[in-house]
Amino acid sequence: MMDEDVEDGNLGPYQDRPRTFPTMRSKPYTPLILRILMGLNVRVLIILLLLCFGAIFYIGACTSPIIVFVFSICIISFLFAIYLTKWVLSKDEGPPEMVQISDAIRDGAEGYFRTQYGTISKMALLLALVIFGIYLFRSMTPQQESSGLGRSTSACITVASFLLGALCSGIAGYVGMWVSVRANVRVASAARRSAREALQVAVRAGGFSAIIVVGMAVIGVAILYATFYVWLGVDSPGSLKVTDLPLLLVGYGFGASFVALFAQLGGGIYTKAADVGADLVGKVEQGIPEDDPRNPAVIADLVGDNVGDCAARGADLFESIAAEIISAMILGGTMAQRCKIEDPSGFILFPLVVHSFDLVVSSVGILSVRSTRDSGVKLIEDPMAILQKGYSVTIFLAVLTFGASTRWMLYTEQAPSAWFNFALCGLVGIMTAYAFVWITKYYTDYKHEPVRTLALSSSTGHGTNIIAGISLGLESTALPVLVISVAIVSAFWLGQTSGLIDETGNPTGGLFGTAVATMGMLSTAAYVLTMDMFGPIADNAGGIVEMSQQPESVREITDVLDAVGNTTKATTKGFAIGSAALASFLLFSAYMDEVAAFAQIPFREVDIAIPEVFVGGLLGSMLIFLFSAWACSAVGRTAQEVVNEVRRQFIERPGIMEYKEKPDYGRCVAIVASASLREMIKPGALAIISPIVVGFLFRILGHFTGHPLLGAKVVAAMLMFATVSGILMALFLNTAGGAWDNAKKFIETGALGGKGSECHKAAITGDTVGDPFKDTAGPSLHVLIKMLATITLVMAPIFL
Amino acid sequence: MMDEDVEDGNLGPYQDRPRTFPTMRSKPYTPLILRILMGLNVRVLIILLLLCFGAIFYIGACTSPIIVFVFSICIISFLFAIYLTKWVLSKDEGPPEMVQISDAIRDGAEGYFRTQYGTISKMALLLALVIFGIYLFRSMTPQQESSGLGRSTSACITVASFLLGALCSGIAGYVGMWVSVRANVRVASAARRSAREALQVAVRAGGFSAIIVVGMAVIGVAILYATFYVWLGVDSPGSLKVTDLPLLLVGYGFGASFVALFAQLGGGIYTKAADVGADLVGKVEQGIPEDDPRNPAVIADLVGDNVGDCAARGADLFESIAAEIISAMILGGTMAQRCKIEDPSGFILFPLVVHSFDLVVSSVGILSVRSTRDSGVKLIEDPMAILQKGYSVTIFLAVLTFGASTRWMLYTEQAPSAWFNFALCGLVGIMTAYAFVWITKYYTDYKHEPVRTLALSSSTGHGTNIIAGISLGLESTALPVLVISVAIVSAFWLGQTSGLIDETGNPTGGLFGTAVATMGMLSTAAYVLTMDMFGPIADNAGGIVEMSQQPESVREITDVLDAVGNTTKATTKGFAIGSAALASFLLFSAYMDEVAAFAQIPFREVDIAIPEVFVGGLLGSMLIFLFSAWACSAVGRTAQEVVNEVRRQFIERPGIMEYKEKPDYGRCVAIVASASLREMIKPGALAIISPIVVGFLFRILGHFTGHPLLGAKVVAAMLMFATVSGILMALFLNTAGGAWDNAKKFIETGALGGKGSECHKAAITGDTVGDPFKDTAGPSLHVLIKMLATITLVMAPIFL
Repeated sequence: MMDEDVEDGNLGPYQDRPRTFPTMRSKPYTPLILRILMGLNVRVLIILLLLCFGAIFYIGACTSPIIVFVFSICIISFLFAIYLTKWVLSKDEGPPEMVQISDAIRDGAEGYFRTQYGTISKMALLLALVIFGIYLFRSMTPQQESSGLGRSTSACITVASFLLGALCSGIAGYVGMWVSVRANVRVASAARRSAREALQVAVRAGGFSAIIVVGMAVIGVAILYATFYVWLGVDSPGSLKVTDLPLLLVGYGFGASFVALFAQLGGGIYTKAADVGADLVGKVEQGIPEDDPRNPAVIADLVGDNVGDCAARGADLFESIAAEIISAMILGGTMAQRCKIEDPSGFILFPLVVHSFDLVVSSVGILSVRSTRDSGVKLIEDPMAILQKGYSVTIFLAVLTFGASTRWMLYTEQAPSAWFNFALCGLVGIMTAYAFVWITKYYTDYKHEPVRTLALSSSTGHGTNIIAGISLGLESTALPVLVISVAIVSAFWLGQTSGLIDETGNPTGGLFGTAVATMGMLSTAAYVLTMDMFGPIADNAGGIVEMSQQPESVREITDVLDAVGNTTKATTKGFAIGSAALASFLLFSAYMDEVAAFAQIPFREVDIAIPEVFVGGLLGSMLIFLFSAWACSAVGRTAQEVVNEVRRQFIERPGIMEYKEKPDYGRCVAIVASASLREMIKPGALAIISPIVVGFLFRILGHFTGHPLLGAKVVAAMLMFATVSGILMALFLNTAGGAWDNAKKFIETGALGGKGSECHKAAITGDTVGDPFKDTAGPSLHVLIKMLATITLVMAPIFL
Repeated sequence: MMDEDVEDGNLGPYQDRPRTFPTMRSKPYTPLILRILMGLNVRVLIILLLLCFGAIFYIGACTSPIIVFVFSICIISFLFAIYLTKWVLSKDEGPPEMVQISDAIRDGAEGYFRTQYGTISKMALLLALVIFGIYLFRSMTPQQESSGLGRSTSACITVASFLLGALCSGIAGYVGMWVSVRANVRVASAARRSAREALQVAVRAGGFSAIIVVGMAVIGVAILYATFYVWLGVDSPGSLKVTDLPLLLVGYGFGASFVALFAQLGGGIYTKAADVGADLVGKVEQGIPEDDPRNPAVIADLVGDNVGDCAARGADLFESIAAEIISAMILGGTMAQRCKIEDPSGFILFPLVVHSFDLVVSSVGILSVRSTRDSGVKLIEDPMAILQKGYSVTIFLAVLTFGASTRWMLYTEQAPSAWFNFALCGLVGIMTAYAFVWITKYYTDYKHEPVRTLALSSSTGHGTNIIAGISLGLESTALPVLVISVAIVSAFWLGQTSGLIDETGNPTGGLFGTAVATMGMLSTAAYVLTMDMFGPIADNAGGIVEMSQQPESVREITDVLDAVGNTTKATTKGFAIGSAALASFLLFSAYMDEVAAFAQIPFREVDIAIPEVFVGGLLGSMLIFLFSAWACSAVGRTAQEVVNEVRRQFIERPGIMEYKEKPDYGRCVAIVASASLREMIKPGALAIISPIVVGFLFRILGHFTGHPLLGAKVVAAMLMFATVSGILMALFLNTAGGAWDNAKKFIETGALGGKGSECHKAAITGDTVGDPFKDTAGPSLHVLIKMLATITLVMAPIFL
């Protein structure tokens, strides 16, 4: 279908140097649900919406005033997001040749999104059935039994949470892509007028999806919580206690991470296979610049930025926040119960409040990126500095609101100074986030030593460049690990000394302290996500500018924005991996609480001196290596298909190079799309099936050797070792990839021989190797780590 | 010094195409101790030797008849080794041009060895002082106190063990290098006559050092054991019990691994920096073949094979065996004590007997590689098949002797069928070794799918080649991990069901079962080491043949032997990492026993749900990544120095390429030697200092937060996570490196365009990247894993 359009594509206005882009404006893709909604009368729609809001607020009001507060903030944020998107969409789309390219990108992205999420939703439905089956046969905790929560209710709750999580994660991905395929052309067009305006458009477009993503994660959990609260009559005599409620939400986190994993894998393979394939033939063999319209794989490459970076990172951070909220709620509930705190709702609902404030402070941060002295066409400030200033504003406000939230929610008479300790925990988290961003910048920015050394090593050839890049990546794991170690130990210690004690007088706030630190780390998530989304939008805008052959001055502007986008993308990954590490440690603790509750056996330790448990750890680490291998080789294989296709086109249509024949963009898009869908299955299935199989096998082994809980313990070790190895591997992959990319960029600034030198060629090899590292395997590992943690939570009945 | 010699070097007989090698016959290096011994009268020497033997046998006889048996086997083996070396040295050294090259190599190797081991021995002495200090202030176990074993005695014992271990490890390395620098020229010379003879010379030379290495590990432990037994009056009333004796030997293992770590690091950096540097300029830039006499770095490269592969691998396997023997003795002693077995000496001395039989069966295997139909000059059989046949003979005999040893040593009336279970554990170990060898072969031999796919990926460029190689390496970790998991669980289960029960009736043989499996795995170590040593000797012979410009037919023979050597080297690494994994797990258990004995607090678990312990794990895994980074970047940096030097020589002496000027080999040797000495310090110091620092810090933290044993637990987690990550990382590095090497070789056979094609160039890049992976970082990780385990054992007093 796309194929034909491309074949009949309009050649554009400048017939002397015809540029060819498919014209497919006519078929914008809208998901079924939106089409139904848009088919309704506007008044009916408004009434429906109001009814919906009314119901939500009513349920919220029945639950807790805090829930009402959270709802209100979220809805105001959504309205703000709508304002942002209206502002962005009101910008002009530029000349028709830009629009044509943008349409081709949009069509490719939406087509892929449709197929990809079609596949994912089928798998999600299948998994929902499996979960339902498992929960129908699971044992119940005594609390649940006494509260009359039946197996079928429990199964329905889990499956409903799972499906809602999956749906929301899908929407988060869709929203990210939706705005980026529309903003790219507007940024490109704005770049013709002013750099500052282009920056602002890109930031606000990114801000729109960031706020939707974070807001949806918060409101989703809040709705589920309130609904279950009202439905199950929580806290009325003889029914479920509020401290047990968060355990019912784990399905939401699993649904989110399930979708995020496949979104990231499929998108990551798509974007990097197209990129690597396009570069290998275009840049290296034919010597044409990046994003040149003569390259048949260029549209696929630009599509990839949207489906890989925007959609996937949206789903990734969505599930980070969802998983972190749920695990913190579980830990808060458990702790409140142990300490016999009278009103535990403050501890349980604290994460929702923190992230509501995140929406507020990040909105301020986004708005702070605006034009004050925006008179000239040239940049008057480094765009990175402008973004950093916004980040500083956000962090400053986040510290204030975080402190206020702890005082409001976590004050308890049993331990009057506990809230202050927890506020310090939050500060630890915020500082950790800042340290991560700084460390990533140090290792990936060519202003600093490491990337310059890497660039220098390119002067002695491809081999030394790769060795140096790999060493750099491996070395870059050290500082983040030290930071995260200090964060875990100090937050735990602050929590432990908070004054909260359990019945037997033992201090018991340690784990919750770590949870609060995680929240602190994620308390600027919306702004960080904005900076991240900014990257691919700027990248795409650069591609559109290049393909529509705008004047040099416009290209310069988008090039600068693109370079800034590369740095923000790399730093966000550092942020994402840091929060994944902490969130996973929380989920692990929540898992132990859950197993203990269901098995009614104390489960307070995972002893790796037991050989089977050690083997579980070994298998967990191995899972990370195997998963990374499959993710990288998927890109390699697909890229080879692209290379062969592009080479074929250059041979069969020799006129392409002289702009006399038009390349068949659609075939490359189709090849990459189908290959990435095929290739995402294997690693994804590995990640989902292996913990289940390992847990089940060792459960049986434990049954025969007389070890109760062996399955659960082995899975716990698997999870912890996988988390540790996953963090390190992801840090290695992300940093090495980012450093190679920027070493190449450094050489392109003219250093060490500049563009076209042997040194530059070696640097391109490094960049090519880094592509699947930093944009496929690395980010997929973030998701994998959290997915493993949530899958063990949901699938725990199998291991018991 | 070397410089001058090179400058004045004899130009050799063929003045038309002068080849230039330094002549330095006059200064063969002999260590001081040997010079003193050689200075003595032969009769005096024999008398001294006999007295020495007499004393050893007397002490042995006072201890146990088993010790006498072990002594006898070891001494017979040494005599056999002397026979082998006499046989090898009786072969002719070929024409003078060969001798000249060989002399240059020998001089470079011995010079480096002298400097390197000088540095290492200084560090060892320093560390010995530190250990002495620590042990003077350590607490004693109640058993030790009641037996009157004072602190100063304990300190002396540990330091003496440490120094003996270090000395033996150094001798193991020296012996490996000593024979290989003498055998290389004889193999080259033999290749002029017959392939079979060349193979036999190389195998016997390798066999000599393998037997010395294994024999020395066994006799060293046996002498220490017997000496301490007699000195401390063990088992007499009121003194130390025999089951506590093995704990005093841990210093030996640490000394061995300390020296092995630096030997491997220094040697590995040396060999690969020279190799990469020589290849990058010689092969890639100038297009001259490998080992071409015009390349100024070629002598350094050949020297590297000796100091990197021979010396370092000797030290590596020496310490594998030593560490495994000691940990198995500790576990055997603990178990015997728990089960109240009347005569525990069988369980304690079992590992010594197993490795004595290893010497016997491997000698038979080495002798089985001989000429029966050795009439023609051409090879009549694939040399790999001949070596494999020898391996089969060895394995068959090992199964028989292993079964016999278990029946002899492990029969106890308390559990009459236990010995059979342990024999099965041994079988599990032998099968694991075989599986490891097979899996490594599958992933690194170009007869199989993976390497062919890798070669194919080179056809689309440098980038896809690297991506495919890294994916292959990461993927290749899966099967070995599954094998080792099955081995650990099944050996543990076999041990647990052996019928041995402790006082409370709990089955207690599980860990000892794992120990027996490790012994099974290492029960053919001498033969495997022979195959390994064969590789660099054949490689060197090939270099000598190439440099002395022998006829094509001779080169063909050494090329085939070199290729076989590459495969055996790769498979031995698989074997080494498998045994390191098991040995480390044993040492971990021994560490827990030791901590419990000294702290007098039960230490039966390492609970990674405790945040500090989890952080320890995180730091342990990070240590592996950082160590690998530093090892790789050391090679990269040194290689860059070599590249610059070689480029400089080619520019300053343009006549080199036309054989009109002679390259300055000595400068490259000097550069590589000093750089590798400098570069080995950083990763080595990291490995030694970090567990000590972490343990000490967390001990203090535990002191203030009221956690007894926190330091010990954190170090335990660090050790376990480092082991797991280290195994995976080493597998990844070794396999990826081997696969790249063979993918290049596959293309050189003419596939995919053959030599000189773009595909070949991409494959050379992969090979270059793989060099530091497989010969520096990978093997150093084997040693690191075991070094960490022994350092925690010896340094345990700091953590308590």
